[in-house]
Amino acid sequence: MQRYFAKEKNNNTFILNDNDLYHISTVMRMKNNDLIEVVYDNKLYICQLNIENKNIEVIIKEEVKEKVNSLNVNLILPLLKEQKMDLIIQKATELGVSKLIFLNTERTVVKLDLKKIDSKLDRWYKIAKEASEQSKRLDIPLIEVLSGFKDLEGIKGLNLVCDTKENLKSIKNALKSSESYDTINIVVGPEGGLSNKEIEYLNKIGFKSITFGSRILRVETVPIYLLSIINYEMME
Amino acid sequence: MQRYFAKEKNNNTFILNDNDLYHISTVMRMKNNDLIEVVYDNKLYICQLNIENKNIEVIIKEEVKEKVNSLNVNLILPLLKEQKMDLIIQKATELGVSKLIFLNTERTVVKLDLKKIDSKLDRWYKIAKEASEQSKRLDIPLIEVLSGFKDLEGIKGLNLVCDTKENLKSIKNALKSSESYDTINIVVGPEGGLSNKEIEYLNKIGFKSITFGSRILRVETVPIYLLSIINYEMME
Repeated sequence: MQRYFAKEKNNNTFILNDNDLYHISTVMRMKNNDLIEVVYDNKLYICQLNIENKNIEVIIKEEVKEKVNSLNVNLILPLLKEQKMDLIIQKATELGVSKLIFLNTERTVVKLDLKKIDSKLDRWYKIAKEASEQSKRLDIPLIEVLSGFKDLEGIKGLNLVCDTKENLKSIKNALKSSESYDTINIVVGPEGGLSNKEIEYLNKIGFKSITFGSRILRVETVPIYLLSIINYEMME
Repeated sequence: MQRYFAKEKNNNTFILNDNDLYHISTVMRMKNNDLIEVVYDNKLYICQLNIENKNIEVIIKEEVKEKVNSLNVNLILPLLKEQKMDLIIQKATELGVSKLIFLNTERTVVKLDLKKIDSKLDRWYKIAKEASEQSKRLDIPLIEVLSGFKDLEGIKGLNLVCDTKENLKSIKNALKSSESYDTINIVVGPEGGLSNKEIEYLNKIGFKSITFGSRILRVETVPIYLLSIINYEMME
């Protein structure tokens, strides 16, 4: 069943945005009485369409209880070129990321035109929303842009930074840590890595350096890799 | 150091293809006596460039011993649209795939023009070669197109097929299997899944049905996910 995220609830109906209504009527060619899934406020509902002429009403039939993921995984990444950002947002959403935090690092400076930041965030939100619907999530990951690593000070959870030094603890080791945690924050560096200064600062504010193995991966592959193995580690 | 794959060895020099020579001279703007890494016959060499006018000679300085991966991971996948194929080939190469086998399934039929198959294979080889160089592999994964699942009969190794039925053994369970294996062959289905008939046939010829968890992933995400967790499982 097709899933949509609603932004508003009005008594026993949901209000969908225009793109979703277009998707229902024109892309999916749905008919009167067809059923869809709607997520609102992290809850899932089965709804029935009441289509009269061009007017589509989304009527709540029942709420469905779904298990919510109890582990939050937040990734902190360099701002990258548009195509790589899009890929990361889509794939990380499929793989269950809770929050994506982008920032500039010493070795990558992508200039974000402040006038355009809203339209960028809109674009990223759209990609994340679509991927959330397609992968049947109950939430849409948050996407933030921070001014720098200093904004991470005091962040709570199992805090890790992917480092390239030798003889580091492996991520496998870190994930099997005996400390209990409900949030993992992982910093991924740019191509060429984080600078020593950046790593030292992150270590100072509580991010443990870890290695994720001997493979040399492109920056945009690393978040997909990390989320895959965290999913795997949590698997029964 | 930049890595290139050579196709020919001539006494103490390697012959690189024209694209690589162009990359050395024009993209990287390397100079006389600069060093590069060359892989030939799955072995790694440090080489020095002897550049005179437009002529580039690649002279072997020394062989470097690198640990070779002892586990072969082969993925068997539906033929997909070009952009998804390219993404899979690039990312699977980075993540260490040994062989990619593409074929048509009941629910996806991508018509390959037989006249164009050579140019397709050339294109895929190029993507795999570039990703192998970038991720510092000692080999380039093989890419094959099979006519159907029947060609998999008799294939040796730990043979798995990603299935969507409930109550299946998890991939985690399968990877921790007590049988020893040096090759894993995994079949990934198309969007909409393999048909019951296909799964039954694969089960019959020795592919065990497994589940890889509750996430709903796009077809092109599945191979990246599988290779990530296999890398992770093999990690110390």
